[in-house]
Amino acid sequence: MASVVDAPVTYARENQQRFLNELKDLLRIPSVSTLEEHKPDVRRAAEFVAAELGRIGFEHVEVIPTKGHPLVYADWLHASGKPTALCYAHYDVQPPDPLEEWLSPPFEPTERNHNIYARGAVDDKGQLWMQLKAFEAMMKSNGGMPINVKVLIEGEEEVGGESISAYVSQHKDRLKADFALITDTELFAPNLPTLCVGLRGLVYTELEAVGPKIDLHSGMYGGAAPNPFFGLIEIISKLKDAKGKVLIPGFYDRVKAPTKDELKAWKRLPFKDKEFLKNEVGSTTLTGEPKYPTLYRLWARPTVEVHGMPGGFTAVGAKTVIPSKAAAKVSMRLVPDQDPDDILKKYEKYIKKITPKGIQVKIKVHSKGPASVVSTDSKYIKAATEAMHDVFKKDTVFIRSGGSIPIVSDFANELKIPSVMMGMGLPDDNLHAPNEKFHIPNFYRGIESIIRFFQRLGGEK
Amino acid sequence: MASVVDAPVTYARENQQRFLNELKDLLRIPSVSTLEEHKPDVRRAAEFVAAELGRIGFEHVEVIPTKGHPLVYADWLHASGKPTALCYAHYDVQPPDPLEEWLSPPFEPTERNHNIYARGAVDDKGQLWMQLKAFEAMMKSNGGMPINVKVLIEGEEEVGGESISAYVSQHKDRLKADFALITDTELFAPNLPTLCVGLRGLVYTELEAVGPKIDLHSGMYGGAAPNPFFGLIEIISKLKDAKGKVLIPGFYDRVKAPTKDELKAWKRLPFKDKEFLKNEVGSTTLTGEPKYPTLYRLWARPTVEVHGMPGGFTAVGAKTVIPSKAAAKVSMRLVPDQDPDDILKKYEKYIKKITPKGIQVKIKVHSKGPASVVSTDSKYIKAATEAMHDVFKKDTVFIRSGGSIPIVSDFANELKIPSVMMGMGLPDDNLHAPNEKFHIPNFYRGIESIIRFFQRLGGEK
Repeated sequence: MASVVDAPVTYARENQQRFLNELKDLLRIPSVSTLEEHKPDVRRAAEFVAAELGRIGFEHVEVIPTKGHPLVYADWLHASGKPTALCYAHYDVQPPDPLEEWLSPPFEPTERNHNIYARGAVDDKGQLWMQLKAFEAMMKSNGGMPINVKVLIEGEEEVGGESISAYVSQHKDRLKADFALITDTELFAPNLPTLCVGLRGLVYTELEAVGPKIDLHSGMYGGAAPNPFFGLIEIISKLKDAKGKVLIPGFYDRVKAPTKDELKAWKRLPFKDKEFLKNEVGSTTLTGEPKYPTLYRLWARPTVEVHGMPGGFTAVGAKTVIPSKAAAKVSMRLVPDQDPDDILKKYEKYIKKITPKGIQVKIKVHSKGPASVVSTDSKYIKAATEAMHDVFKKDTVFIRSGGSIPIVSDFANELKIPSVMMGMGLPDDNLHAPNEKFHIPNFYRGIESIIRFFQRLGGEK
Repeated sequence: MASVVDAPVTYARENQQRFLNELKDLLRIPSVSTLEEHKPDVRRAAEFVAAELGRIGFEHVEVIPTKGHPLVYADWLHASGKPTALCYAHYDVQPPDPLEEWLSPPFEPTERNHNIYARGAVDDKGQLWMQLKAFEAMMKSNGGMPINVKVLIEGEEEVGGESISAYVSQHKDRLKADFALITDTELFAPNLPTLCVGLRGLVYTELEAVGPKIDLHSGMYGGAAPNPFFGLIEIISKLKDAKGKVLIPGFYDRVKAPTKDELKAWKRLPFKDKEFLKNEVGSTTLTGEPKYPTLYRLWARPTVEVHGMPGGFTAVGAKTVIPSKAAAKVSMRLVPDQDPDDILKKYEKYIKKITPKGIQVKIKVHSKGPASVVSTDSKYIKAATEAMHDVFKKDTVFIRSGGSIPIVSDFANELKIPSVMMGMGLPDDNLHAPNEKFHIPNFYRGIESIIRFFQRLGGEK
């Protein structure tokens, strides 16, 4: 019989195939939080997760209704005197389009080359399932866990996470913990244990432009009627210059540079522009502010992107229309210490100023959240570092991510706890893109890393 | 019994309600030429028109297959020694979207306030039907027509009219005529008889931009990966300045100004910027080159428009994607003597020059055709002027149109014949927009004007 220390890992290894099959069941639920028609699927995914937490032996399991998609809460608080973890992941996923580019259907998980392909495989259902399976391994092999665990899983991560943010600020007592564990990030390179200690923030808006009162024939009216597409193009062309510099006045005012130590460490990471360009981006060149290295640009420089421009005629062929309405989905990535509300105000003011005559623009805000950084001196970061060393047999590197996990700021600001971002994704996992995947060995290593992490914090190892 | 001269008009008046009912049947066929799924409907519309020509007594009635949608040809050539008309209209229509803005279904013609509402009501099925019903009235009341008539109807007007263009250049003998009659334009104002003697040309393109090889997460890659939307925005923002001046080098080289007489006549037309803005455009202001009056800008100045920008994420909500691909439907309206091929070459060269690094752009050409003007001294224009005076009891005004009817150039260049553009639309008929309509009294006046026009050319009046 395995020792208390080794039993959970042994259990996890013996049950790998079942764990993977269960994950596939979760991946089959198209819990696309951004699309109204998938609302029942999102709920189904929440109930799937809640049921599993109950089965494992968690208590106070609850599917919590919100204005949007439900939260799932559960806890197991019987490790008297030990620290308490607040474990976070999300069960919602991005839309799967463009569908025609998937090699296997996005909601029919398919194994190829030790990867599992599906929408949400790595972001974030696979990484959510790592947590649950680590908990199960500890509970079933030893009858309990080495530390106290609260679980809070959301279904709105891909749409801005408003409900969890409100819930956290309203339930500080219930969520009281010593640290948060978040499994929604990635390894810097295959087999390189990685902890993410910084994230960019996000302000996601939609510019809604109106020109003529109705769609007009571009022959009859072209040259006299304002075209809302041209209006948006004129505005957006003034948001960022050709070299990637954002032109919103005051945009960079509060930008805080990384420390010299951090910059030095980033230079030592196994990263080459050429390979990044070839293997991940696949364009003819990288772009962005020329005076900052690529990782610096991605992790510590803010930027503006356009994600889509709905409106007008977009079907195959030609239609000679000056549309009445056009829109643009425009987001800004923020870095410490930019404040989303301040940036939004500057953005709105600037757009008002540069909106061409004849065009009326409304700005709708889809989501906003600040950037965040976590100190590498935290004892939780240290324990996580050691746990990953146990599993990977290599030193852990500290990185940031260019993405945004707004909950990290909420945990810092509302609960005053640091977040340990222990993610097992890979840079080529096609997050938010067709053929999203999760490397199956990383799924298993994630489970073991969480077990070892909790054991170290519980004083078992 | 009515005289030979009056019999056709009397016949037309007695059959108005039936004519309208037949038009409704034609309008019920969703012959949207730009959408592949409507191909059978487009064919059905062609057959509907051909059958009617046969019923009226035309000969050599033929539905002519093409690479695209069929042409309909028919003739009646028994007015020995009299001129020959080549009568043109089109039976295809624009797509009806956005569907939700229609007050009644686009393919269920509905009468309200003496208008008939339907996609194609005025553009161009209603005006096509004016011709056929004028022919019927002459044939059925007098057993023949005062001049010879060839009919050539197309189903690709809304997609560039490639097939008819090829057919005209390959069948010059069959189509030999003294002039063309085109019913696809509008009255300058209600009750104001109008002949259109000039049209703008059109070059309609699609810019297809590629940035990364796959869709990327805008958090992970934003600031280093080229965004094809920003690429297109950068390009398009350089096509036209904020004052409406096109920036393509050499674009204005061959632009020919209207004559002083023409400009003077335009100033006398019942047109007020304020009313045009309020009643037709409905934006906060008119736009375009400030030094040209509005009608000058619409009729005799070239311009550039954007009709839609497919790609990326366009559904409701937020998706943080840097899309691999984005496109823009961009067209240019041309004036005499700009040459479409020359303009296209300059456009392609300029875009190549201004395409930002990291972005690859392909230019697809949907259609191209030059502008055209017809002399007001032509005897066919004079006869048409008199015919409309007979019906409207008012002097006819000469206008141009900002729209494009490429067939007019083909008739001029290939068949060496002038086109009489006698249209009965109204400026607020919502061409190419939701709630397209045709004023029913204008449908009837169109029939009578064609009868009187042909009678004058046949020496009957």
